[in-house]
Amino acid sequence: MKSSIFKPVDKELALVEKGIKDIANVEYPWLAELLDYIVNSGGKRVRPALTLLAGKLQGDYNLDVLLPVATGVELLHTATLVHDDTIDLSTRRRGKPTAASIWGWGIATLAGDYLFSQSAELVSRANNVRTDRLFAQTLMALCTGELEESFCSFDLNQTREGYYKRIGNKTASLFSMATESAGIVNNAPEKAIEALRDYGYNLGMAFQVVDDILDFTASEDKLGKPVASDLLQGKLTLPAILLKERRPDNNPIKAIFEDREKERSLKTAIEMICDSGIITECYKVAQSFVESASKSLKTFTDSPSHRALIELADYVVERQK
Amino acid sequence: MKSSIFKPVDKELALVEKGIKDIANVEYPWLAELLDYIVNSGGKRVRPALTLLAGKLQGDYNLDVLLPVATGVELLHTATLVHDDTIDLSTRRRGKPTAASIWGWGIATLAGDYLFSQSAELVSRANNVRTDRLFAQTLMALCTGELEESFCSFDLNQTREGYYKRIGNKTASLFSMATESAGIVNNAPEKAIEALRDYGYNLGMAFQVVDDILDFTASEDKLGKPVASDLLQGKLTLPAILLKERRPDNNPIKAIFEDREKERSLKTAIEMICDSGIITECYKVAQSFVESASKSLKTFTDSPSHRALIELADYVVERQK
Repeated sequence: MKSSIFKPVDKELALVEKGIKDIANVEYPWLAELLDYIVNSGGKRVRPALTLLAGKLQGDYNLDVLLPVATGVELLHTATLVHDDTIDLSTRRRGKPTAASIWGWGIATLAGDYLFSQSAELVSRANNVRTDRLFAQTLMALCTGELEESFCSFDLNQTREGYYKRIGNKTASLFSMATESAGIVNNAPEKAIEALRDYGYNLGMAFQVVDDILDFTASEDKLGKPVASDLLQGKLTLPAILLKERRPDNNPIKAIFEDREKERSLKTAIEMICDSGIITECYKVAQSFVESASKSLKTFTDSPSHRALIELADYVVERQK
Repeated sequence: MKSSIFKPVDKELALVEKGIKDIANVEYPWLAELLDYIVNSGGKRVRPALTLLAGKLQGDYNLDVLLPVATGVELLHTATLVHDDTIDLSTRRRGKPTAASIWGWGIATLAGDYLFSQSAELVSRANNVRTDRLFAQTLMALCTGELEESFCSFDLNQTREGYYKRIGNKTASLFSMATESAGIVNNAPEKAIEALRDYGYNLGMAFQVVDDILDFTASEDKLGKPVASDLLQGKLTLPAILLKERRPDNNPIKAIFEDREKERSLKTAIEMICDSGIITECYKVAQSFVESASKSLKTFTDSPSHRALIELADYVVERQK
């Protein structure tokens, strides 16, 4: 993340960072150590930055409610990552051993649950029934998306529409909550709240599409995991779905999913995806989400936060990792 | 559970039951099947009954808010059971295979998360920031209690105070939420809300102490698991802590935790606990919690719900499973 984009909310982000670290201030030393490890495992803090930028976009804002909500949004993200790593048996994230690999997956599961509760508690500090409801609905969407991914893994019959719905749940819902909640706690007009929700949702969609592109085009070194790891895990993302659309009967995905000549088939799949127009088409999809996102912002007047949100949307497509 | 105790809220409990089953009405058939299996796995519905009885205790009550909160409380309980089974690798609960043993622990973990979100969503339907906050705090207490149990397992240095704190978090917090939330959504006076919270908390404490007694005194058949399974899992509950207090240097718990002559040591521990005054002392502890619970109810006037809550408190100690 180009940190310069977050400049208009640099000070507030530092307070969010403090709020995140504060959750490790608990009476039990063993719990403090566990939480401290998890919340200090890095992260670009994109989601709380979105809440803060969206909050400042509207002129008047109240940090007393904006900060806990922004912090809660980030902890909700952290909680899902902890459970993802536990479920996937991942040993490393962001270059560090995962909580599950150190404390075991039982404790990692409970730590994720604890972070859900912390997130709910922080959001509840805004004293707003609407953000509380949004928290519940977002958690539901996140879980539905993750469950869908689990149930659909190694299933060849996945469509573009199914993919959009899935990433809408597992990724865009939280981006959407990040920006919408800022409008709600600021008591913004309904039109503004809707615009913020649309911005966040479309940005999240673009973010995930680009993530899924990079899984094929970036180097193992940049990714911190093998190239095409989604395919290896039985996940059909947009590039693979487009390959399937173009070559319904003659593509190596079936072989990969059935564990036949896996290495050779994977190499062929990566080549087929990268050497055709598929990546360009995927970027066009991402770009159209970004355009929708930026269009949503037209309802707000120009300001440093406004420019930052537009720049962020463009950056999401341009980023290389 | 003697179902006659719940008679004053029989009709409302049927509506809660419907609400619980309704959460399996989702668009994805695979998710519907999973949720349907989990929510139809039995359960005595003690916690939602508490919310309903506590709600009716106060005269005026609004079912539109009381029902979703009661249903949310039960689903919070269900969610924690799903995660408990996943973490403990339990294969059976209430005579049926666990979700984890059928769908695998990855999906069971996500299903538990999904139930947390459903619980939060149901509670949020009361449109009350205070119950939303209570939900978050209760989830936090539940997770802290479970984490404490995990971190302290096979640790011989556990005290009575630590035990009370742990069961306060892992069990009494939810009983307390069940009754306190009824007062909150009924806009009861602070004194009444406090009394309901105290009742629930003390009832929950008694409930867990009796559970921990029965783990030693009931038959394997009634328990549906081996006698003294807590000790086998490295958990020190009140009966074992009292044994340790009485015989600090000459008890078989150390041997059990260190896996030395386990079967014989376990038999000795059960005999030492059951043949001494330990069980009587544990029942005295449970009884004193029940008395505190009943005392809290004195602030309310006599009614069928009032009598039911007092009867329930007595039943908690008398029950044999």
